[in-house]
Amino acid sequence: MYFPRKIELIEVGPRDGLQNEPIAIPTSSKKELIRHLAEAGFRRMETAAFVSPKWVPQMADAEEISKYCHELGITYLALTPNLMALERAIAAKAPQIAVFVGASSAFNQKNVNKTTEQSLVECEEMFALAKQNGMFIRAYVSMAFSCPYQGEVTLEEVRRVCDRFVQLGADEIDIGDTNGFANPKMAYERFSRLKDWYPDTVFVGHFHDTRKMALANTLAAMQAGIEKFDSSIGGLGGCPFSPGAAGNLATEDISLMLSELGVNTGVHLEKVKQTVPLARSLSSRF
Amino acid sequence: MYFPRKIELIEVGPRDGLQNEPIAIPTSSKKELIRHLAEAGFRRMETAAFVSPKWVPQMADAEEISKYCHELGITYLALTPNLMALERAIAAKAPQIAVFVGASSAFNQKNVNKTTEQSLVECEEMFALAKQNGMFIRAYVSMAFSCPYQGEVTLEEVRRVCDRFVQLGADEIDIGDTNGFANPKMAYERFSRLKDWYPDTVFVGHFHDTRKMALANTLAAMQAGIEKFDSSIGGLGGCPFSPGAAGNLATEDISLMLSELGVNTGVHLEKVKQTVPLARSLSSRF
Repeated sequence: MYFPRKIELIEVGPRDGLQNEPIAIPTSSKKELIRHLAEAGFRRMETAAFVSPKWVPQMADAEEISKYCHELGITYLALTPNLMALERAIAAKAPQIAVFVGASSAFNQKNVNKTTEQSLVECEEMFALAKQNGMFIRAYVSMAFSCPYQGEVTLEEVRRVCDRFVQLGADEIDIGDTNGFANPKMAYERFSRLKDWYPDTVFVGHFHDTRKMALANTLAAMQAGIEKFDSSIGGLGGCPFSPGAAGNLATEDISLMLSELGVNTGVHLEKVKQTVPLARSLSSRF
Repeated sequence: MYFPRKIELIEVGPRDGLQNEPIAIPTSSKKELIRHLAEAGFRRMETAAFVSPKWVPQMADAEEISKYCHELGITYLALTPNLMALERAIAAKAPQIAVFVGASSAFNQKNVNKTTEQSLVECEEMFALAKQNGMFIRAYVSMAFSCPYQGEVTLEEVRRVCDRFVQLGADEIDIGDTNGFANPKMAYERFSRLKDWYPDTVFVGHFHDTRKMALANTLAAMQAGIEKFDSSIGGLGGCPFSPGAAGNLATEDISLMLSELGVNTGVHLEKVKQTVPLARSLSSRF
């Protein structure tokens, strides 16, 4: 088995984790969470989404959170699902943006009311504008293993999206197990093929712990050479079905495993653990 | 990565899972659980312990459970911690026995008030008697990764116990992560070394999910060539610290993962899932 010397963990709790919370979260609490995570060693976090406050009230403070990240001196990712969002991100001087396209057209249609192809066309203009502004571009392939509307998503569907992301010059491509249906064999095989097809592309693994397989999937993706993974403090987010159910891969779980595997993540394990109660206090799920 | 075609899952819930329950469990409920598990496809289960009813009241019905297993026609394992227990197992015509020795002497002393060496000496007579009676012998190495009293347990300590078990003719050696402190690197490395040292010995992996690593550890042990694993329906047992906390690796979790990896276990996934509520209803933890 292969245990790399170093892995980058990207914390996504403040955005991905909190975005769908039904209860209002004070901006000051989010800032406190981000500060604790920065102190725990995360140099890169997904902290904001420039989405309509009407649809996603939890992210209405994107500008203020951006400003705070600049003050803290951390590199943050801001989700920009469309051109209008990108313009706000540019105004806020976000260093990195994240765009997403569903590998499953059924999901993409339900999620943003566009086919996968329509979303990819929209990416062209966004990528060009982001590049003009010197932004780093993370491109998410959502539902890259399975989709609640169509069941299994084929690797060909994932490839179709990756092809375009690579052509458009994405700086990293994040393969999302958005609904937690990956298994270690799929993770190993898909990441191995993607690495074969796109040897110069940086891939990120994004697993959900819905079926308790997130750590096993991480281990499998590592065997395929993946060295960047997303996680969410306290396991926030991930559309879990019931209170206490697992959502996103929890930062404290992957940090602990990687630490014991002798993999350097730059993350301070004790500080991560200490941040869990704060993270969970912001969520209606705990 | 290596995904074997076939793996044997040994269900340990009825014994290992229920042994330490503080509430009384009716024998009829245990029988029902065993019957459901047999119907789910388990051909081999650990169902009884011939221990003193004074110390372990939950296992007072060992004779009756043995009789029931014979009626059902399943191959069952009975825990026999000492000669007196073995004699009861012989009288009950148990086809397979399980003995255990702690790799950590500190643990062994606390658990059975003997040093590891004293326990190994006692095994000599037990193994001989079991063999005279045509019994299959499972030999557990408890605390084979870590121990609550001494911290990390070295591979040399594990080897010392394995050496004797092999000399004495154990039919399989079960490497127990009794307190859930293994990680995938340890699992891979320890099982790889053990397979090198004892190429003709059958090893079993026994993981606890205390730190959510049980599936990742299973995957790692599989890479080292291990093809037998214990699990407990509903995650029963495993000395968890708090209500709802994970204990033994749950049968439903490993069954699901192995099924998705294309590994044949002979286990009926839906029937396993259906048995979980019954299993949990017998435990004070759920």
